[in-house]
Amino acid sequence: MFDCISIIGCGLIGSSIVRAISEKHISKKIVIYDKSNKALSFLKKEIPKVELAKDLFTASKNADLLIVATPLSSYKEIFLTIKDCIKKNAIITDTGSAKKEINKIIENLDLKNNSWIASHPIAGTEDSGPKAGFAKLFENRWCIISPSPKAKKEEIMQVQKFWELLGSKVKVMSFEDHDYILSLTSHLPHAIAYSLVRTAIDSKDKFKKAVIQYSAGGLRDFTRIAASDPIMWRDIFLDNSENILTTLDNFSNNLEELKRAIKEKNGKELIKIFLATKEVRKEIIEAGQDTEQPNFGRKKD
Amino acid sequence: MFDCISIIGCGLIGSSIVRAISEKHISKKIVIYDKSNKALSFLKKEIPKVELAKDLFTASKNADLLIVATPLSSYKEIFLTIKDCIKKNAIITDTGSAKKEINKIIENLDLKNNSWIASHPIAGTEDSGPKAGFAKLFENRWCIISPSPKAKKEEIMQVQKFWELLGSKVKVMSFEDHDYILSLTSHLPHAIAYSLVRTAIDSKDKFKKAVIQYSAGGLRDFTRIAASDPIMWRDIFLDNSENILTTLDNFSNNLEELKRAIKEKNGKELIKIFLATKEVRKEIIEAGQDTEQPNFGRKKD
Repeated sequence: MFDCISIIGCGLIGSSIVRAISEKHISKKIVIYDKSNKALSFLKKEIPKVELAKDLFTASKNADLLIVATPLSSYKEIFLTIKDCIKKNAIITDTGSAKKEINKIIENLDLKNNSWIASHPIAGTEDSGPKAGFAKLFENRWCIISPSPKAKKEEIMQVQKFWELLGSKVKVMSFEDHDYILSLTSHLPHAIAYSLVRTAIDSKDKFKKAVIQYSAGGLRDFTRIAASDPIMWRDIFLDNSENILTTLDNFSNNLEELKRAIKEKNGKELIKIFLATKEVRKEIIEAGQDTEQPNFGRKKD
Repeated sequence: MFDCISIIGCGLIGSSIVRAISEKHISKKIVIYDKSNKALSFLKKEIPKVELAKDLFTASKNADLLIVATPLSSYKEIFLTIKDCIKKNAIITDTGSAKKEINKIIENLDLKNNSWIASHPIAGTEDSGPKAGFAKLFENRWCIISPSPKAKKEEIMQVQKFWELLGSKVKVMSFEDHDYILSLTSHLPHAIAYSLVRTAIDSKDKFKKAVIQYSAGGLRDFTRIAASDPIMWRDIFLDNSENILTTLDNFSNNLEELKRAIKEKNGKELIKIFLATKEVRKEIIEAGQDTEQPNFGRKKD
């Protein structure tokens, strides 16, 4: 499909893309770059046919599809470094979880010969690094692509086709809609999970050990997402701060309503709140967004 | 082990106890009562050897171990009805998720010939009713038992042995410690999950459908516990309100700290918060409180 695909950043997501491209023969050449030599040699050993790039320049110059799979905070430096050496007509995409701010950086570069078509594969596990990756990570997952207004229709189709070959279902969406929807489906839940786990496990509490021991009653389910990569999440919270702060305020208002119902011993109001969320669960199952697989199917086999 | 065990309440937990007692031959006689005749005849069909009690009186009079597995809000009426007809020297236990308030009710009855040894099996699924139950529900789960001060040591040992025969690990704990620890491990997470799902799925939002569609990014993990039985959770929130309100206030303070860090774009503070919760995850895995089984091993096969 492409003569050469380059992947910059070989963590959980980047290395999984490399493995999937290799297994499915999607590109004649696969060039990889990571600032960690250890990550690169680890992948080279596993997939001998990949070519290691010694720097960002080498990684970018021959790619027909250039995939940036690094933390959001590194994009600016990376794009400033590579912007003048990207191959003419190459498509640039990424795997970042927030889009609006990143898009401003890229629009400012005013790339004349390249199309920017952002991607966000909604896939991941609680683990990070190249060892955690696996080829099937994207199978049956959604991937949202957000093209720059200048991108051509056939280029958007190519990126869509690329993710479909990796097994994903693709949805095209504006940067703004993406960031708003993800603030609700992913960023808010992570903010809440971090705060919840922090509250429950107060290291000064004499019951700390007991709380961990009996965590199966609900708390445990939150600790998985509260164990996600700290750098990735710092970047998301800073990039999508406006949406996240609004949804957090809405959440706090809902929580105050619940507290008031508890304080006033208002059983009817509590039932009303609980029934509403029970309905949501049904809708999620009906939308095929649940799975019986271990860890919601997120884990490596 | 017992000549006769009676179970009052045949929902998810009660019916699972009935199945486990039957499979493991823990009692010569099993008597069951539920206010729903449908629930009773359903279980009778599945396990012909159980005896159906037509009322609370019949259910209680011959039991050596009497297990109340109904919502907390029904205890007062049940205990007032049965208190004078319970067999002499019978042990009374339950399966409730909050203890302090219930214990007051039972102490007030001033039972002279019976020992009250409360139980809380930390086991369950998002489903309710007798069809949802299964015999292995308690295997490898914790069960906390909280004896009244008047209970004899050998009686406490009998209740412990009973749960161990059902496959549980048992811990003896005071009513107060139980309610505090459970407020952190279970009640707080449920309060948060209900509020989170309510916030994310605002039915007036034009993106409601999209939010459900892309819920795999974090939100979905919360919808399971936000789908638990509303009546059971109303009762828990009312009974353990003092502890729950305190932990909710602590949670709100932690959330405000996170909001402040986001507002001030304080990346260092964010990393600090996220690293702390990553550690907790390790401790939970080390404590053997995680599982690779589907739905954390909570589901029926």
